Amino acid sequence: MIYQLDVHTEGQGLYDFTADVKAIVSRADIDEGLCTLFSRHTSASLIIQENADPSARCDLENWLNRLVTEGDSLYTHTTEGPDDMPAHIKSALTATSLSIPVVSGRLALGTWQGVYLWEHRHHGGLRQIVMHLGL
Amino acid sequence: MIYQLDVHTEGQGLYDFTADVKAIVSRADIDEGLCTLFSRHTSASLIIQENADPSARCDLENWLNRLVTEGDSLYTHTTEGPDDMPAHIKSALTATSLSIPVVSGRLALGTWQGVYLWEHRHHGGLRQIVMHLGL
Amino acid sequence: MIYQLDVHTEGQGLYDFTADVKAIVSRADIDEGLCTLFSRHTSASLIIQENADPSARCDLENWLNRLVTEGDSLYTHTTEGPDDMPAHIKSALTATSLSIPVVSGRLALGTWQGVYLWEHRHHGGLRQIVMHLGL
Repeated sequence: MIYQLDVHTEGQGLYDFTADVKAIVSRADIDEGLCTLFSRHTSASLIIQENADPSARCDLENWLNRLVTEGDSLYTHTTEGPDDMPAHIKSALTATSLSIPVVSGRLALGTWQGVYLWEHRHHGGLRQIVMHLGL
Repeated sequence: MIYQLDVHTEGQGLYDFTADVKAIVSRADIDEGLCTLFSRHTSASLIIQENADPSARCDLENWLNRLVTEGDSLYTHTTEGPDDMPAHIKSALTATSLSIPVVSGRLALGTWQGVYLWEHRHHGGLRQIVMHLGL
Repeated sequence: MIYQLDVHTEGQGLYDFTADVKAIVSRADIDEGLCTLFSRHTSASLIIQENADPSARCDLENWLNRLVTEGDSLYTHTTEGPDDMPAHIKSALTATSLSIPVVSGRLALGTWQGVYLWEHRHHGGLRQIVMHLGL
């Protein structure tokens, strides 16, 4: 049971696609299982974060931008733009795949957890997530 | 095959729950499979680390506490206490889900690997981990 | 369906073993499924990164080496050598397990994604990865 989710991004930020995942799980009509999400990119990643207060996600993004700066003299991989190498590093520090159990037909997310695609490039674009739903 | 594991924490630190996971795998009586662990929190995470010398876990925790400081002037999300935003960042840098193969009825952990819940808040509390055991 | 992959390392660096994983998936002859990789070590980790330009992986490694330095006065776990504690920290910041969906008989990797074992020790050695292939 494979599904593809497209997330359109318009620059750096965390894009909530929890509702899309929940909708697929709901339609699949399984009682127990495992939902695995996989990002097909090396400059965008996956993250489960607090879904209540947007300031938490904003601080998280600002903190990582300060840790992984653009224009670092260490970089030699610079031909694809100043935000490319930082995007690879940020992807390495976060998740490419995430697995969430399905319990009683629902994703077993905690009350305050949302599922986000984290776009690390300035321009953004179409990001592809492959979802596997297993028993 | 879904199980819930509760880990009671009493402040920041790595809490070993390897024995609980092994006990469930043993009772399940499967030969080969995949054990997936999922943390239902955004201020506590999962980590596989060295189980031999406690000093390694202590250094790891101190290192991350120095990288992700409390009272950072960057934070705007401060209403839930000085340890809340650092806890979200630390969770983002570590794992929300982990998958460990089961081989010959046992978790395929390396000799020196233990499974830990990493509590990032000072007060701690009841932390819920959902475990999925699949074939 | 469990497989063991051995990766021989000769010091720090990212070792591409994408072809080994693809070969197993191809021989398994399944249409859809989930491939999970697990590192049995706490001083080597797994990462999906850009496979095109080696400079991206080189910069990534140099960046992490600068963040997680050897000889840090914070370390108390020093008996196994100056590269041991940094290796544990680097493993904690990257992945111990990764899951990649299988679609139409192939790993659903993006065009620019490769699967790497990241050796964090200077001497290297034999690194064991356990792979689970499920439906």
